Amino acid sequence: MLNKSEVFKALSSDSRWEILNALTDEPKDINEIADRVGLKAITVRHHLSSLTQTGLVEPLPERKGGVGRPTTVYRITGDNIRVSFPQRDYFLLNQIIVGGLLSILGSEATKEIHLRVAVKAGFDLLENTASENGLERWTLDSFRRLFVEGLLGEMGTKPEVVSQSEDELIFQERNCLFFELVKTNPELICNALDKGFHDGVVKALGPDFEGERLNCMGHGDPYCRYKILWNRPSGADST
Amino acid sequence: MLNKSEVFKALSSDSRWEILNALTDEPKDINEIADRVGLKAITVRHHLSSLTQTGLVEPLPERKGGVGRPTTVYRITGDNIRVSFPQRDYFLLNQIIVGGLLSILGSEATKEIHLRVAVKAGFDLLENTASENGLERWTLDSFRRLFVEGLLGEMGTKPEVVSQSEDELIFQERNCLFFELVKTNPELICNALDKGFHDGVVKALGPDFEGERLNCMGHGDPYCRYKILWNRPSGADST
Repeated sequence: MLNKSEVFKALSSDSRWEILNALTDEPKDINEIADRVGLKAITVRHHLSSLTQTGLVEPLPERKGGVGRPTTVYRITGDNIRVSFPQRDYFLLNQIIVGGLLSILGSEATKEIHLRVAVKAGFDLLENTASENGLERWTLDSFRRLFVEGLLGEMGTKPEVVSQSEDELIFQERNCLFFELVKTNPELICNALDKGFHDGVVKALGPDFEGERLNCMGHGDPYCRYKILWNRPSGADST
Repeated sequence: MLNKSEVFKALSSDSRWEILNALTDEPKDINEIADRVGLKAITVRHHLSSLTQTGLVEPLPERKGGVGRPTTVYRITGDNIRVSFPQRDYFLLNQIIVGGLLSILGSEATKEIHLRVAVKAGFDLLENTASENGLERWTLDSFRRLFVEGLLGEMGTKPEVVSQSEDELIFQERNCLFFELVKTNPELICNALDKGFHDGVVKALGPDFEGERLNCMGHGDPYCRYKILWNRPSGADST
C-alpha cells in the first residue's frame, strides 16, 4: 500500500518524474535510464533508491546478452496511481456506464455503439486537424507529424515510429490511456473503441489509405502497433 | 498555470492536504480552518502561505457579520487537478462516449440509456450493501450509516446529514465526482445519471421509502441535497 504523502514527495522532483516516465515502456538498468533522462548514473541511483523505498519502482536481476554477471533492471510496480483534487472519479463513471450498458443492452449492442462512437471520434479528430492545419490531403509524412507525433504524443500514449517507407508507416504506442478498463473489457475497449477510433482515422485519411492493427496491449503485447498503407496516387508528392 | 512539481510538493504534506480538503466546501478564515483540521492558527497560516504561492488557494477579503474589520478567507482556486501515473485519461473517455452517444443517438435516447444504467447501479449498490451487512430491511438509521456516511463518504462526495427525524432524512453532498462533465452536460449527468442513481437507491430501500432531490451543484447550488421520506410501517423499529 503506497503512502499518499510519500508518493507526492517522490513525484515532486522533475528528475524522478522523468525516470518514472522512462520506465513506463520497459524495465531498464541504471545506465540506460541515465542515457534516456540525461542525468549522471550516480544521480539516477540515488533517485531509484528513493523510488524503490516509496514502492513506485522495484529492482529485478536480469542477465543481459547471456554473458557476464546479471545487471539490475528497474521496473514500475503495481497499480495505476490516480489523484485528483478536488476529488473526481471518472474511472468509476466509466465502470458504471460500461457495466450498465453491457448488462442492459447486451455485449453485441454495446460493442456496436462503442464502435460507432469511436469511428466518429477518430474521423472528426483527423478532419479537424486537417482543417486547423490547412491540409488539403493527407500524406504519410503529415500523418506522422500531426497525428502520431503530434496528437498521440499530446494525449500521452508514448507513440514511436517503428518504420516508414514511401507507402507504409508502422507506429506503436507504449501507454494505454484506459488500461485498467481494457484489462476487464478487452473485447469492448480494444476491439470496438480502439479499433473504431483507428478505423475512423484511416477513413478520414482518404480512400488511398488502409490501416491494420498488428499488436495490442490489451491482448498481452508490450505495445499497440499499427500499420498504415498508402496507395499513393501517381504524381502525388510524398511530403 | 500550476507547476507540476510544486503542486506535488504542496500535496505531499498531510496538513496541507487536510487544509485543502477543509476548503472544498466553502471559503474559510484561518481560525475556522484551524478548528476544522485541529492545527494551531499559526501553523495553518504558514501552510496557507505556501498553498497561495503554489496557486492552489487564494485569499479574499470578506466582511463577516457586517461589523468590525474584514477577515481574510481562503478558497480553492481554478481547475481540477488530475494526475495519474502511468498516464490515464478516463475523463477523455467519458467525453468521447458522452459526446458520441449524444451525436449518434440524440439527447433523448442518450438520456434514457443513462437513466436505466444509473437506476440499476444505484439499486445494485444498495442491494449488495444490504446483503453484505445481513440487513433484512432498511431503516433511516441503517441508510444513514451504511449509505450516506459509509458509501458516499468512501466515494469522496463529502456527505453530511442535515437533519433527521423519525420519518425523514435530509443529507447533502459537497463534492461532485463528475463536476467537469456536469458543467457541460447537466441535463445528462444530473437529470439522468444522478437522478437515476438515487431513484435506484430509493427503489432498493423498499416501497415504504420516497426520495426527492432538493438542490444540485450542477444547477448552481453549493451542494446536492436529498430528502428521503420513510412511511414507517406501524410496529417497525426505527433503528
